[in-house]
Amino acid sequence: MIHENAHITIDPARAADFENAVSQCAPLFRAARGCRGMSLERQIEDPGQYVLRVVWDTVEDHMVHFRGSADFQKWRELAGPFFLAPPTVVHSTKPDPFF
Amino acid sequence: MIHENAHITIDPARAADFENAVSQCAPLFRAARGCRGMSLERQIEDPGQYVLRVVWDTVEDHMVHFRGSADFQKWRELAGPFFLAPPTVVHSTKPDPFF
Repeated sequence: MIHENAHITIDPARAADFENAVSQCAPLFRAARGCRGMSLERQIEDPGQYVLRVVWDTVEDHMVHFRGSADFQKWRELAGPFFLAPPTVVHSTKPDPFF
Repeated sequence: MIHENAHITIDPARAADFENAVSQCAPLFRAARGCRGMSLERQIEDPGQYVLRVVWDTVEDHMVHFRGSADFQKWRELAGPFFLAPPTVVHSTKPDPFF
């Protein structure tokens, strides 16, 4: 399992609408091939900064299968208008003792 | 509950020793006032980048009580020598639908 961490910057004045859009997209992620869960975290120190966290079986499940899907287009259609810049996306693993 | 995210950069050639040091410190975090769990994630794209994730009841549990404790000194003593720069630390919350 790997974690996708997508760092997203929005106008904090639009937080409620953005969170609502992400919430509408949650079923799209959760139904995707290899998706094990998703969540959203909002930074306390800078409330325009969010991290979308998605757990996938593999990086390919995210970068190839999900990004190539109609559901990714739907995600970008609903959440994309809030992005002030292209999200920064990285993937991570948990070393064994922390799995 | 809030999440501490400490972004840590190390020399990836020292990854095994660093992970071992963090593993040794896990009981210090887990015994701390207000700590609900901790984990470590290693970035796939840049394997010298880690995020230490700690769940606390409040920001104060981290920034006041833990940082003022002898266990924080122990953490810095064991893990600090691996840091190539001071960690970047932010805190986040999960908006209601994602809690």
